[in-house]
Amino acid sequence: NGLVLVKNPHLDLMEEDVLYHLDLGTKTHNLPAMFGDIKFVCVGGSPNRMRAFAQFMRRELGLAGAGEDVADICAGSDRYAMYRAGPVLSISHGMGIPSISIMLHELIKLLHHAKCRDVTIIRIGTSGGLGIEAGSVVITDTAVDSSFQPRFEQVVLDDVVVRSTELDKGLAEELLACSRDLPDFPTLIGHTMCTYDFYEGQGRLDGALCSFSSEKKLAYLRRAYEAGVRNIEMESTAFAALCGLCGLKGESCCFHLL
Amino acid sequence: NGLVLVKNPHLDLMEEDVLYHLDLGTKTHNLPAMFGDIKFVCVGGSPNRMRAFAQFMRRELGLAGAGEDVADICAGSDRYAMYRAGPVLSISHGMGIPSISIMLHELIKLLHHAKCRDVTIIRIGTSGGLGIEAGSVVITDTAVDSSFQPRFEQVVLDDVVVRSTELDKGLAEELLACSRDLPDFPTLIGHTMCTYDFYEGQGRLDGALCSFSSEKKLAYLRRAYEAGVRNIEMESTAFAALCGLCGLKGESCCFHLL
Repeated sequence: NGLVLVKNPHLDLMEEDVLYHLDLGTKTHNLPAMFGDIKFVCVGGSPNRMRAFAQFMRRELGLAGAGEDVADICAGSDRYAMYRAGPVLSISHGMGIPSISIMLHELIKLLHHAKCRDVTIIRIGTSGGLGIEAGSVVITDTAVDSSFQPRFEQVVLDDVVVRSTELDKGLAEELLACSRDLPDFPTLIGHTMCTYDFYEGQGRLDGALCSFSSEKKLAYLRRAYEAGVRNIEMESTAFAALCGLCGLKGESCCFHLL
Repeated sequence: NGLVLVKNPHLDLMEEDVLYHLDLGTKTHNLPAMFGDIKFVCVGGSPNRMRAFAQFMRRELGLAGAGEDVADICAGSDRYAMYRAGPVLSISHGMGIPSISIMLHELIKLLHHAKCRDVTIIRIGTSGGLGIEAGSVVITDTAVDSSFQPRFEQVVLDDVVVRSTELDKGLAEELLACSRDLPDFPTLIGHTMCTYDFYEGQGRLDGALCSFSSEKKLAYLRRAYEAGVRNIEMESTAFAALCGLCGLKGESCCFHLL
């Protein structure tokens, strides 16, 4: 029926659900009235970029208030920022898997409480490219970990649960079709590697610690390329796993910064 | 000689070091002039709290400009916020190990380039307490992972390197001694457990996903308590490992929110 799924039998027994890091809750806010008509959620790391994206969407959709400042719905919390542009929600998630996971848990519950239907979620972040032109956009077919495996290992209490990281193939193709109207941004579909670390984990030679040579770095990145990886970032495996489990049609398309 | 160590032979060969996420750099800023006299760095997740802390320190230290607004040194980036109060730097690190790691790599290089000496770094965050009074402060002796082991597993390219997570015992005792002047905040020394996830990883029953019973959660938390864990948060193992390797005297003391 297109509803967003929560997979937690305890939630129905709770009198109130406080979405703490979003500064929203089921008793303090009328979530169906505030969010029931949301159809698209776009997420990215930086709060300023997500505000700029909401302003851009208001102009593109010809909405009232386009050109004016947009209000941060989560202003009472400085963990994340959330903006609205008609049926589009634009939310920041900070950097790394733990940070995006907290936001996604609370966002999924928000969409569930608001009884949203047929929601598409797209991560529009930045990433490092691998063997591709600077300024390219990579649409992710599968998110892979630092061993190039399509899996997300989630620690649940002291067990490790392995989750799938496939994204919506149909949506990836749709986004690729849209990209044909934007000749300035070469766009391709490929695997996205997700790491827990920006410096040592992604082969950077300019961190406070670096124990490997330039040759070893290049050999690793070459193996990643041969495994189908076209860009590297820090959130996609958790994003793919959580969206997949909760019935959200999800895609990640990242801009490759130089 | 008390200098902050970087362990990266490539850094000396670089013409410029851009501390990208802090919006600072060796060619664009005179780092020794800006930061050479820093002796204490306090870090915490939330940007607003770290600004409030800098304002508090200015008042406590009787500095000029106390009571006025403090400028964000990293205003050109919205990844982290950084404020100064005399010899004290106050920086936000976001949520989770990947986010604090990026900040620490760039902070350590900043202190190195600025030729700072004898720097003490203290994480002043929030955490969930385990078998302790709400409002308590836990000073960490050792940070442990979700299996209660005193280790931080860092992925370096596709290898896993295990690092020590011990913190400065002398500093912990000094902080405990200071706490005796603050009777409103019960303070203790204990292990701090660091997880990659706030909901499933810390036994919360109110995430979008939850596959365990209340009994299983309590059994896990009881085992953690028996292993010496007194609070749970999401940054301490990476913090302890990076500070330890780079010669920063580090401590983590977290306030237990209800």
